[in-house]
Amino acid sequence: MLYALIMAGGIGSRFWPKSRVSQPKQFLSFFENKTLLQTTIDRIRPIIPVERILISTNSDYVAFVKEQIPDLPGENIIGEPVARNTAPCIAFASALIHYRDPDSTLIVLPSDHYIRNDEAFRKDLQTCVRLAMDGGKLVTIGITPTRPETGYGYIQFNDNTQISDEDYNAYPVKTFAEKPDVQTALKFLQSGDFLWNSGMFIWNTRVILREIEEHMPVLHHQVELFSQDLKKHNGEVRRDILDSVYHSCFSVSIDYGIMEKSDNVLVLPSHFDWSDLGSWMAIYELLNDEANEEGNILNSERAITVRSQNCFIQSESSKLITLVGLQGIGVIETEDALLICKLDNSQHVKEVYEQLKGETFGKYG
Amino acid sequence: MLYALIMAGGIGSRFWPKSRVSQPKQFLSFFENKTLLQTTIDRIRPIIPVERILISTNSDYVAFVKEQIPDLPGENIIGEPVARNTAPCIAFASALIHYRDPDSTLIVLPSDHYIRNDEAFRKDLQTCVRLAMDGGKLVTIGITPTRPETGYGYIQFNDNTQISDEDYNAYPVKTFAEKPDVQTALKFLQSGDFLWNSGMFIWNTRVILREIEEHMPVLHHQVELFSQDLKKHNGEVRRDILDSVYHSCFSVSIDYGIMEKSDNVLVLPSHFDWSDLGSWMAIYELLNDEANEEGNILNSERAITVRSQNCFIQSESSKLITLVGLQGIGVIETEDALLICKLDNSQHVKEVYEQLKGETFGKYG
Repeated sequence: MLYALIMAGGIGSRFWPKSRVSQPKQFLSFFENKTLLQTTIDRIRPIIPVERILISTNSDYVAFVKEQIPDLPGENIIGEPVARNTAPCIAFASALIHYRDPDSTLIVLPSDHYIRNDEAFRKDLQTCVRLAMDGGKLVTIGITPTRPETGYGYIQFNDNTQISDEDYNAYPVKTFAEKPDVQTALKFLQSGDFLWNSGMFIWNTRVILREIEEHMPVLHHQVELFSQDLKKHNGEVRRDILDSVYHSCFSVSIDYGIMEKSDNVLVLPSHFDWSDLGSWMAIYELLNDEANEEGNILNSERAITVRSQNCFIQSESSKLITLVGLQGIGVIETEDALLICKLDNSQHVKEVYEQLKGETFGKYG
Repeated sequence: MLYALIMAGGIGSRFWPKSRVSQPKQFLSFFENKTLLQTTIDRIRPIIPVERILISTNSDYVAFVKEQIPDLPGENIIGEPVARNTAPCIAFASALIHYRDPDSTLIVLPSDHYIRNDEAFRKDLQTCVRLAMDGGKLVTIGITPTRPETGYGYIQFNDNTQISDEDYNAYPVKTFAEKPDVQTALKFLQSGDFLWNSGMFIWNTRVILREIEEHMPVLHHQVELFSQDLKKHNGEVRRDILDSVYHSCFSVSIDYGIMEKSDNVLVLPSHFDWSDLGSWMAIYELLNDEANEEGNILNSERAITVRSQNCFIQSESSKLITLVGLQGIGVIETEDALLICKLDNSQHVKEVYEQLKGETFGKYG
């Protein structure tokens, strides 16, 4: 059967001050009235019933998940006692799903990305499911790059050996590349055989567990302990064993731990519009329908702009906000904090967060 | 005897949102704990007792003046019923002072300028007083320009006929020039015979009244009515006559009405540092002692800057203010409004004010 794991553990520090430790990005609403997590779940409901959707999150956020996805069975929420990046998260969830259904196929998705064409997205997922089931492959979705983005990882594919039918072309993966500098990103873009790493994975749970056994023996050992405990307690995930195995794990991404090492990986170039919503700039760009003729998006009760273009105001206060002589500036105001940033520098907002962490984290973090 | 007239009628719209119709610039404190008006008065107290200082202001602001200068005699405050620029203001005040002391010499000063060297300033004033008394001249102070400023008026002097003694050089004025464009300002700066118009004037009251009679006959007629009423009521300025004569006046500056037309004008190049405090940029520059090593001046309870230089925060709120990737930006926050401006565009802040005037002036103006 087909399952999904939604990874919802992040804190989204680049959306400070709207995102906080107490209110991470995936639980916030940037578009319409749904949070990113709700949108992510609703996007896959047509192909996977909620009974087969699992959400992994920080144990502090379990209440958020229950509140936002009320029909999700409680036993489908994995509350991580400590953040250990994606490899442990995926490994334990895979073991749990594999226990429930030994022949399960699993779709792993981030909880906080933006996708415009839901139907095209679901069609791509179903293609990946077929590839994963047919060939026992680790399948990932790559996004066709549109600019020399330095904020994303890249996937290079082997275009000599495409695997296609009438609907799609998929490719064996040659390498996973970390976030490049601008020069390298330009080369990647021009080469034609690089895709953006979307962080979406599709595989049979038996296959990924075997890959973990092969490439991550320490993690495999913890997964074994976890699986034995599951069996002993009829599939119940017990708090103390979860605490124990999580704390024993290294913090490693699935990309680094498995995908880069395995020679069993396929990538499907995507057929949908995508953004990882990595910064306020990304939000500004996606809201471009709302921009006025000067390119300003003014989401506040009262705003006046003078000689200002391509600015973005997002304010919860009733204060009059005025911009004079500004280009490409973002103004994000919450009840207790005000961020003003050059939008094309908005990836550095996380440095504010880092400073706060060392100081009055409790109040503003 | 020596008198002073301080003109305090302006609304200072370029300091919105800190300055409001209800709280104009001259009644605000930008430096230390004194308001600009208080500083202006204190600067001349060593040479003129407060009994001989008059303040002209909008009638709505008389209470501000009384509150800020409590030892100023009430009969020394002229509450203008309507703004009519500087010529009527100076004419009626001169008539009042002339009534009190027919041989009076008058120093006319703006209430909202910045001067760094008070002693040098007073010495220049005393030089001007001497020039005004000796020759029956209209004397003005010109500021030696340090940059091709387009926000000031200029005074061109005749450097062939200097009037000097061991302490000073003064010059007959050739022309008064309006605010120039950049090209013209550059020419003015390079010529060496242009000074900035400081709006400070020194003359015998009999002389200025005679000049008004010669160059502004309509205003002269109103001054005559005013003076007759003064005589009739033993020097009391009656509300209804002031209302009547003010409303009958044209709105004209003393520069345009008298100074440009008279051939009896001397200018003394100043020996003090001066700014007309025309914009937030001017405040930022004058506060440069307070700037940190990145050139940021952070006057708020709590601020964090990341990759930001030469910015200026002035906030009354307890909100955490954070700047990311900004250069030369001013952030002015009051209880009900937030201004974010490029500092070198801060002269355009008055355009916000103009927009408000047409809209919800009552609330934010």
